[in-house]
Amino acid sequence: GFSNNGKMSDRVFANYNIYKGKVALSASPRLPQFSKLDSGGLKVDRQGTIMLQFSPAIGERKYDWEKKQLFALSPTEVGSLISLGPDDTCEFFHDPSMKSSNAGQVRKTLQVKPYADGTGYFISLSVVNNILKISERFTIPVTRAEFAVMRTAFSFVLPHILGWDQYTNQSAKNIKEDAPMVDPGVTNSEWDR
Amino acid sequence: GFSNNGKMSDRVFANYNIYKGKVALSASPRLPQFSKLDSGGLKVDRQGTIMLQFSPAIGERKYDWEKKQLFALSPTEVGSLISLGPDDTCEFFHDPSMKSSNAGQVRKTLQVKPYADGTGYFISLSVVNNILKISERFTIPVTRAEFAVMRTAFSFVLPHILGWDQYTNQSAKNIKEDAPMVDPGVTNSEWDR
Amino acid sequence: GFSNNGKMSDRVFANYNIYKGKVALSASPRLPQFSKLDSGGLKVDRQGTIMLQFSPAIGERKYDWEKKQLFALSPTEVGSLISLGPDDTCEFFHDPSMKSSNAGQVRKTLQVKPYADGTGYFISLSVVNNILKISERFTIPVTRAEFAVMRTAFSFVLPHILGWDQYTNQSAKNIKEDAPMVDPGVTNSEWDR
Amino acid sequence: GFSNNGKMSDRVFANYNIYKGKVALSASPRLPQFSKLDSGGLKVDRQGTIMLQFSPAIGERKYDWEKKQLFALSPTEVGSLISLGPDDTCEFFHDPSMKSSNAGQVRKTLQVKPYADGTGYFISLSVVNNILKISERFTIPVTRAEFAVMRTAFSFVLPHILGWDQYTNQSAKNIKEDAPMVDPGVTNSEWDR
Repeated sequence: GFSNNGKMSDRVFANYNIYKGKVALSASPRLPQFSKLDSGGLKVDRQGTIMLQFSPAIGERKYDWEKKQLFALSPTEVGSLISLGPDDTCEFFHDPSMKSSNAGQVRKTLQVKPYADGTGYFISLSVVNNILKISERFTIPVTRAEFAVMRTAFSFVLPHILGWDQYTNQSAKNIKEDAPMVDPGVTNSEWDR
Repeated sequence: GFSNNGKMSDRVFANYNIYKGKVALSASPRLPQFSKLDSGGLKVDRQGTIMLQFSPAIGERKYDWEKKQLFALSPTEVGSLISLGPDDTCEFFHDPSMKSSNAGQVRKTLQVKPYADGTGYFISLSVVNNILKISERFTIPVTRAEFAVMRTAFSFVLPHILGWDQYTNQSAKNIKEDAPMVDPGVTNSEWDR
Repeated sequence: GFSNNGKMSDRVFANYNIYKGKVALSASPRLPQFSKLDSGGLKVDRQGTIMLQFSPAIGERKYDWEKKQLFALSPTEVGSLISLGPDDTCEFFHDPSMKSSNAGQVRKTLQVKPYADGTGYFISLSVVNNILKISERFTIPVTRAEFAVMRTAFSFVLPHILGWDQYTNQSAKNIKEDAPMVDPGVTNSEWDR
Repeated sequence: GFSNNGKMSDRVFANYNIYKGKVALSASPRLPQFSKLDSGGLKVDRQGTIMLQFSPAIGERKYDWEKKQLFALSPTEVGSLISLGPDDTCEFFHDPSMKSSNAGQVRKTLQVKPYADGTGYFISLSVVNNILKISERFTIPVTRAEFAVMRTAFSFVLPHILGWDQYTNQSAKNIKEDAPMVDPGVTNSEWDR
């Protein structure tokens, strides 16, 4: 199983939510998973994602979370979103069953299209599930201000879902104690091969 | 009541202050509040804000803090400010009594308008309070340099007021101890529903 | 005197250095100072700065640090630098003796001017000291790549010199323990006055 | 030798990988090294880098890591990459044997060139090694989305490879305990010389 040395990492619920007439969109990061190496080091075992969650409205400002559909943005898909120009479009395709016997049975498509006047984007998720005979489509209008929150929060979290926040020297770990005995060029050098 | 395990979070006074002839503008973040779930997890109970505080001048570089008026920017309003182009305008309306019996009695309007030459913005707060029979308006000119400080500091703090800084792996919490026993696909997968 | 609970904050030497033919420019942050309030809270007593240090060359890649001149950028001056467009100019004036009996005797001017072809900036510091009868001028060419390092590092450090990194919930300090007894609207509300 | 007080800093393996038909490109930071000063302070002894690693494909999505070639980006080279416009080109030259008796025998060139349609960059590493009689060239196409991930992650990590994350007041280190006895102007002042 998993050991959670830290107290809360996968039990935090802090979403950025956008509530509109027909759909609610909710975004939150999923951190990468690490494995311990025999050497004692840490290796990213699975990269993190930013999870988008679409839920249909069932009344005024009420949404049916039971009917939600998910789309997990990879780091490169996050890069695509945060670099999107005001008139740009992007589209991602996922098959959650890829590499299993159900490959090709489910197809998820996320599409981001600019408003005609450039003041925001329509974000759509369509899910075609041939096993459950489901075909759903969620579309939510996202204003420039809301997209700026997503861009800023996604940019903040991107290094974390890559695991790069592990590379920080908050306690100045790399301290050379007795310089004369060491060739500091060895470890980092471009000669490593 | 509240328990503050940490030592200082809501007792820090670190504002970004802009002092001008008629008005002083002061900005500082208010962190979100979390509730503990029965499961032991943490949930954002109320999102954070960035509080803007306007105080009138009562002499040369002296301001009457007793007469200050407040405006608490939501995450999306912060997104609007940090994505404002040099010629853009934005305007936000708040009713601090919304959902109470005094709804509609107080109306606060924050307006950001570019200088004619594009080298800064006028930021205005108007407060109409029908209960106290008050109608006030503060306007402060903010240079491009000052606005850049606000944009940078607001962008830094935005993930924190969303609570997303809880999603960080500073101590590499997500360590898989015994991989063979685990299907790491379960927790994060888009199949969750 | 000062107490340094932390181990190293004001003993870290991590400059970003630009070495050119006639001048070396070195930049590093100076953190703000806090006072403890009677209430136990913390208040920024003096804002941080980014210190620029100019030293004249005295041989090939050798610089005379004894002859260095300093210029401490305020948060708003940092805002001006990080928002500088490729064709923009900016200029700051300091009188380090301001408010003392020597006011007006020393005048420091920092000037940033774009290259003719827009691929970088000339940064100049001139110091006129009527007390020591010194008049010095340092000018260093800074490429777009070097300026990008300054912009990125200065943007990173700006919230820290404002003291805003104190507003972080790394250990989720704001936990509401017994929600029913509390009106969470009180603390943060725009009604505070 | 080295002492690693921290647990994992140089044993973390969290790369951003781009896999393409002929080449895989992998990027990860290398933190700076510090020396302890007699005064107890910390000084950056060697700046950090971002290491780029190019490996040739030897089958479908299989790469020969044994044949990898490295290129360590300096902070200023990182600044060049993160400020690259969509039509810009940049080129860096390294001689890993510089200042040794083998100087000039090995020449590494990293080149970044925009796609004709501006939607990405070709990143090439060429290595000419006169000692080993090797001449190799790796070229990988990098989409705008992938480059946005690099730009965001590199911008995040740049202050860390400069060592500037040591300048943070997470525990409010600079607390003035007895203000009346102290002239806070001394330490930070531009008078230091």
